[in-house]
Amino acid sequence: MRNIKLVLEYNGSTFFGFQRQPGRSTIQEALEKALSVFSRRKMKIASASGRTDTGVHAEGQVVNFKTSSDADLKKIQRSLNALLPATVVVKEIKEVPLDFHARYSIRSKVYEYRVWNHPYRSPLAAGRAFHVPYSLNLADMREAAKFFIGRHDFRSFTSPSAIKKEKVSFFRTIKRFQIQKQGHLILFHVEADGFLYHMVRNIIGTLLEVGRGKRSIRDIPKILKAKDRRMAGMTAPSKGLTLHKVIY
Amino acid sequence: MRNIKLVLEYNGSTFFGFQRQPGRSTIQEALEKALSVFSRRKMKIASASGRTDTGVHAEGQVVNFKTSSDADLKKIQRSLNALLPATVVVKEIKEVPLDFHARYSIRSKVYEYRVWNHPYRSPLAAGRAFHVPYSLNLADMREAAKFFIGRHDFRSFTSPSAIKKEKVSFFRTIKRFQIQKQGHLILFHVEADGFLYHMVRNIIGTLLEVGRGKRSIRDIPKILKAKDRRMAGMTAPSKGLTLHKVIY
Repeated sequence: MRNIKLVLEYNGSTFFGFQRQPGRSTIQEALEKALSVFSRRKMKIASASGRTDTGVHAEGQVVNFKTSSDADLKKIQRSLNALLPATVVVKEIKEVPLDFHARYSIRSKVYEYRVWNHPYRSPLAAGRAFHVPYSLNLADMREAAKFFIGRHDFRSFTSPSAIKKEKVSFFRTIKRFQIQKQGHLILFHVEADGFLYHMVRNIIGTLLEVGRGKRSIRDIPKILKAKDRRMAGMTAPSKGLTLHKVIY
Repeated sequence: MRNIKLVLEYNGSTFFGFQRQPGRSTIQEALEKALSVFSRRKMKIASASGRTDTGVHAEGQVVNFKTSSDADLKKIQRSLNALLPATVVVKEIKEVPLDFHARYSIRSKVYEYRVWNHPYRSPLAAGRAFHVPYSLNLADMREAAKFFIGRHDFRSFTSPSAIKKEKVSFFRTIKRFQIQKQGHLILFHVEADGFLYHMVRNIIGTLLEVGRGKRSIRDIPKILKAKDRRMAGMTAPSKGLTLHKVIY
């Protein structure tokens, strides 16, 4: 038995998220279909680094699957890419130890969020960026972002429905939070040991309110402390979000 | 009477090019429809910097139209943007002298061509870049590109059907030709006083053959001299091309 790790890129706009759902087009379904055609038997992935929501993109989603096939890795990759739709690609393929698990073995994940910050929308940036027409104070957003770095209870930044389901801890450690400007695009990079449901999008939504002057920088520690979703800002839309990288 | 200049950005993927054609969705049709709704009477643009082909994008297409309306420019821009589809936007609006003509007044045009140069396709880059899976010699392509700079008869780089229609000169002056690498993207920027039909795409297609080692650098002056389309390389696909800027 071999354990194969795949790194996937996908354009999330045409999918109902990563996870398989009956009657809906998902990345997992497309991938398992390609794997099954290639293997000539029903195949499932063993694990994925996590689900991405409807509309969320990935540059480095990681999955693994187990197979008894001794096919050459490059050949598997080429075949899968020929079978997958144009919106999904296997960027890398690697044989990993049998105990490798795309989710449990994670050291950290990096998400990128893109904001198109200009009075007018951009048809060319639109597919991958959230349009924010008002001016944003970057210095304030960077100051506010610093409060997220470190180990915190992020209950205020996940959805109440996720809280009910979650059995364990709401603590996550944000290791890095960068905000860069690239022309009219603002790029947010957040690295953490893990993320709660909607956590990046709720953090970005809150920071945008700081950038607009609707909230003060000092609100962030208060919101974290409150452990109450209603204290935080809006959920930024999924199309601005990309799962950039998973580090093992 | 006022003469109004608009700078447009559009995603060309869903259009049959800029120019109006019966029964097909074009940028000109979308724009004149929005202008007519705003003006409450049938409106046409006076001129455009040029047509872009099916699938070609624009970051800085320029058009002008004449109107007797004394409406505030920002109001016109906001209204047009509310009326236009999500794939087109008016980025800038300006009142210009009555003799300004979006085509005849041009000093130069800048096109950008994007190549995604990686063994595997990229679902996220796909909409705006041509996928070239083999490795390319950038130094050779840069050397070859130098031969295009200056004033030349570009008959070898336009389509024979365009040659029949063209009444005047096939001479154009390329002022700048830059090739940059940005991760796996190769960006070509070409500035000229004007372009023949398919000229950028035929030049890029030929340079890619140089980059792949299928043609030598020294072929370029020979192709230019031949004034024969059959001597040049393939026409690179439209989706990699963007009308970057028009300079007056």
